[in-house]
Amino acid sequence: MNLSVGCILRYRATQPTPLLFNVEAMLGKGQSVTNERLVISPSLRNDVWTDTSGNRFVRLIAPQGELSLTYDADVATSITQESPGAVGEVPIGELPQELFPYLSPSRYCQSDKLQRFARDTFCQLPPGYQRVAGICNWIRDYVTYESGSTNAMTSAIDTVTERVGVCRDFAHLSVALCRALSIPARYVSAYALGLTPPDFHAAVEAYLAGPEGDGWYLFDATRMVSVDRLVRIGVGRDAADIAFCTAFGGVAYDPPQVWVKDLVGASQPTTDAVRLA
Amino acid sequence: MNLSVGCILRYRATQPTPLLFNVEAMLGKGQSVTNERLVISPSLRNDVWTDTSGNRFVRLIAPQGELSLTYDADVATSITQESPGAVGEVPIGELPQELFPYLSPSRYCQSDKLQRFARDTFCQLPPGYQRVAGICNWIRDYVTYESGSTNAMTSAIDTVTERVGVCRDFAHLSVALCRALSIPARYVSAYALGLTPPDFHAAVEAYLAGPEGDGWYLFDATRMVSVDRLVRIGVGRDAADIAFCTAFGGVAYDPPQVWVKDLVGASQPTTDAVRLA
Amino acid sequence: MNLSVGCILRYRATQPTPLLFNVEAMLGKGQSVTNERLVISPSLRNDVWTDTSGNRFVRLIAPQGELSLTYDADVATSITQESPGAVGEVPIGELPQELFPYLSPSRYCQSDKLQRFARDTFCQLPPGYQRVAGICNWIRDYVTYESGSTNAMTSAIDTVTERVGVCRDFAHLSVALCRALSIPARYVSAYALGLTPPDFHAAVEAYLAGPEGDGWYLFDATRMVSVDRLVRIGVGRDAADIAFCTAFGGVAYDPPQVWVKDLVGASQPTTDAVRLA
Amino acid sequence: MNLSVGCILRYRATQPTPLLFNVEAMLGKGQSVTNERLVISPSLRNDVWTDTSGNRFVRLIAPQGELSLTYDADVATSITQESPGAVGEVPIGELPQELFPYLSPSRYCQSDKLQRFARDTFCQLPPGYQRVAGICNWIRDYVTYESGSTNAMTSAIDTVTERVGVCRDFAHLSVALCRALSIPARYVSAYALGLTPPDFHAAVEAYLAGPEGDGWYLFDATRMVSVDRLVRIGVGRDAADIAFCTAFGGVAYDPPQVWVKDLVGASQPTTDAVRLA
Repeated sequence: MNLSVGCILRYRATQPTPLLFNVEAMLGKGQSVTNERLVISPSLRNDVWTDTSGNRFVRLIAPQGELSLTYDADVATSITQESPGAVGEVPIGELPQELFPYLSPSRYCQSDKLQRFARDTFCQLPPGYQRVAGICNWIRDYVTYESGSTNAMTSAIDTVTERVGVCRDFAHLSVALCRALSIPARYVSAYALGLTPPDFHAAVEAYLAGPEGDGWYLFDATRMVSVDRLVRIGVGRDAADIAFCTAFGGVAYDPPQVWVKDLVGASQPTTDAVRLA
Repeated sequence: MNLSVGCILRYRATQPTPLLFNVEAMLGKGQSVTNERLVISPSLRNDVWTDTSGNRFVRLIAPQGELSLTYDADVATSITQESPGAVGEVPIGELPQELFPYLSPSRYCQSDKLQRFARDTFCQLPPGYQRVAGICNWIRDYVTYESGSTNAMTSAIDTVTERVGVCRDFAHLSVALCRALSIPARYVSAYALGLTPPDFHAAVEAYLAGPEGDGWYLFDATRMVSVDRLVRIGVGRDAADIAFCTAFGGVAYDPPQVWVKDLVGASQPTTDAVRLA
Repeated sequence: MNLSVGCILRYRATQPTPLLFNVEAMLGKGQSVTNERLVISPSLRNDVWTDTSGNRFVRLIAPQGELSLTYDADVATSITQESPGAVGEVPIGELPQELFPYLSPSRYCQSDKLQRFARDTFCQLPPGYQRVAGICNWIRDYVTYESGSTNAMTSAIDTVTERVGVCRDFAHLSVALCRALSIPARYVSAYALGLTPPDFHAAVEAYLAGPEGDGWYLFDATRMVSVDRLVRIGVGRDAADIAFCTAFGGVAYDPPQVWVKDLVGASQPTTDAVRLA
Repeated sequence: MNLSVGCILRYRATQPTPLLFNVEAMLGKGQSVTNERLVISPSLRNDVWTDTSGNRFVRLIAPQGELSLTYDADVATSITQESPGAVGEVPIGELPQELFPYLSPSRYCQSDKLQRFARDTFCQLPPGYQRVAGICNWIRDYVTYESGSTNAMTSAIDTVTERVGVCRDFAHLSVALCRALSIPARYVSAYALGLTPPDFHAAVEAYLAGPEGDGWYLFDATRMVSVDRLVRIGVGRDAADIAFCTAFGGVAYDPPQVWVKDLVGASQPTTDAVRLA
């Protein structure tokens, strides 16, 4: 799918403040980026880097006063669609070493506290894609999506208890439940075609064993967007790793403006297992 | 039923320390107490009182050194057994004023955080006895009883998340879920016939509308004891109100010794709704 | 002091919904109420009662549609001002029995988790009034008052950790710290002269030993209002007991309108210990 | 310093269970390892790897029955001692990209909740080594070390509230407070000379700007061991990353046996800033 994505972020600082951004479409499997433009105004020295996961960061020191960051890019995404029943789990004994951090509890995904719950609730499901899909179905069925109901400190434990949240919370709880079942899982921030109102979105990747090998599969417990319509920005252990902006000091900001346009006409939303190709 | 109950509690204080005990069989509906004996050794000045709920307290200042409290009593309990389907709920608009504290969240029963969960999980059950029984069944099915798994600070939120606990935790979660559904509920500490190993037990009372009027009905989510075999010690908003001993300062103590004997031969455990008579 | 106080509360219900209000000036020590008026519109059957603490409740079933409650009253408050250094603590061994609930942890005042912190931080202060004042000073110094920073589920543990809150949070933390030091303390909701913007306020009462006997002394960790300028609405273990409105079902509502007027000219704010007379 | 370190770990599994160990002395700056031996009994296929931080992992599938892992090695540690006052902080704008994960909150180090507390408590201290030392002093002064007081789910928020814990908790709180002040910090597991009783130990590394360049400096809020006497096993965002054993399934185990011997006679404990050389 070919999508045009972008955002405008605006900040006001009362003193020079370091900011770390993660808004560019990530590099790596499943998407290629062209016609990219990142404009920081006023023009400022900045450092950019891409980490080993393909996440791209911009660091700068916001001067006193106003700052805006504008990003836009065209992104071609490529996925593989597979039969859900054909996608199983990778035994722990065969998991690549670099996957183990995605089995550990993290700030907003306290999988250590959810092991009994996860086992009792999901172990009767077939392992693999269908089990993760079962987790997402459970969350969609039992957690109410309500804008403004949570904040940046809300975690999976809050969500499983209070049963309300936004996409970030749905993703954190999905990730936590996967890890509680020893399925490697990570948090994904994304541009999402068709999200209303437009905003940054959050989804989930689980590492599973497909018919063509092991890899990351995409899930979205909110079911607000078909996962083949995401442009991934960042992947991490949870939102702490890939906030679209981390400020090291106090800054004021406006709500972000975000857009996603379909360049060539999206096909039907998929019900297959979606793997990054 | 006629039961003989009692306990021995032992403490060692390094300096004079106020202690508040709640170990005597409570007074009021459903039980009458005879042949009662409370021995404090060494002999000490102490204050005793009964609060408006019928809970009996002993206050004393433990001197430096050893202290023991021995209690025994014969208790005749009287209950009414009713058909579960005949016991409904009391509308909030008709609830006696003194019941409202049992609808509010308390230290270990954070019902305010569990409203969506309770509603989604239990609202399809018939209101009244069967709904509370459904809560207890759910807890028995989804929470593992495991000695030593929790401590004095564990609350209903911990239990609903981690899915493990002891009788105190089962009772707190039952109470919290009832309140989340606007059913008045309180925590009960008790002597329990047939509990193995013998110990203080915790159960639950819910205020419901029976065929002979409104009143408190007994429940026990652990299902370790038939609720017609309890001698109630205290009732309160949660364990904070009726600990068997509250120490205002540091004291060392041994595990309590507790006993309950059947004086006349208990009948079959009941499956009916049990109301205090 | 003679004050005129009142409020207007507005609700919209989509189905008949029980509401419990606690907005009338409380009865009992320290204040007498005249020229009182409570208007519910539309006119509805309602139940009113006063509990053993002097808190006054109104219960009604809000019909589908709009509902308003208007309250106003003139209140004469009477306090005793004493020298802070002359007000000590009541030994646990001499505390009236009905005070013990105010030593226990409650939903928003988890004093059981704060014992070491309270002891280490406040035990070097003189016991009694000055120790409680020290607690309030500490909170004012270390917790930032910020409108909208917290919500109805925020508790003393959150506040001591995150160090931000509103009057409700300041009061909960004060209460929790007093109880952690074995000083009976309760949460007070109040009309407050001079609060900007006008709103319901929250303060604290601690039970102490004054030169003319034991009694409740008023404190306010926010220091936004002199405690001699409060008209108390309710006292309870924490906000769970005396919310100005508890809805048993979903209702929409407007922000409350609240007013307090000085009828005769307030004197200088006091720095003495203020006891209900 | 030349130390001989080692441990014996014993497990019993009722079914084949994957285990991940991190007990070998880590590779990299500040220590070199010789005469190393790792014996798994019974002999089993196992995978070993070293991650980008130098942490060494062993993965195996514990068969039904008993399993033991014995490790011993000689380790030469090399540190640089510098004047505390000469070690400052690295500005966020100059921090190497790979350090940012050590600024984010993690499972047991919820720095996002501690920002106001950290700023108010430690910002008057000189930045750099002295500020981190001030954090450790504060923890030593205000948190009680008590064996068995906490468990594997205890986090920095629990410790800052309840003020009790063990070395793991002291380290988590130190890390969380550093990150709350924008100082990169990580959790260190270690063998520690002179620890009584012998056990795995936990300490802290903070990334600071020394007179000879930027690097990791060692701290230990328990003050039970001089930081020049540590053999580091693992470094991570918190204990979730580098547990000495992570079991993917239920296993029984004995307490670990751990030893550390001084091969050549340790010099006096240092009071200087200790940097990995």
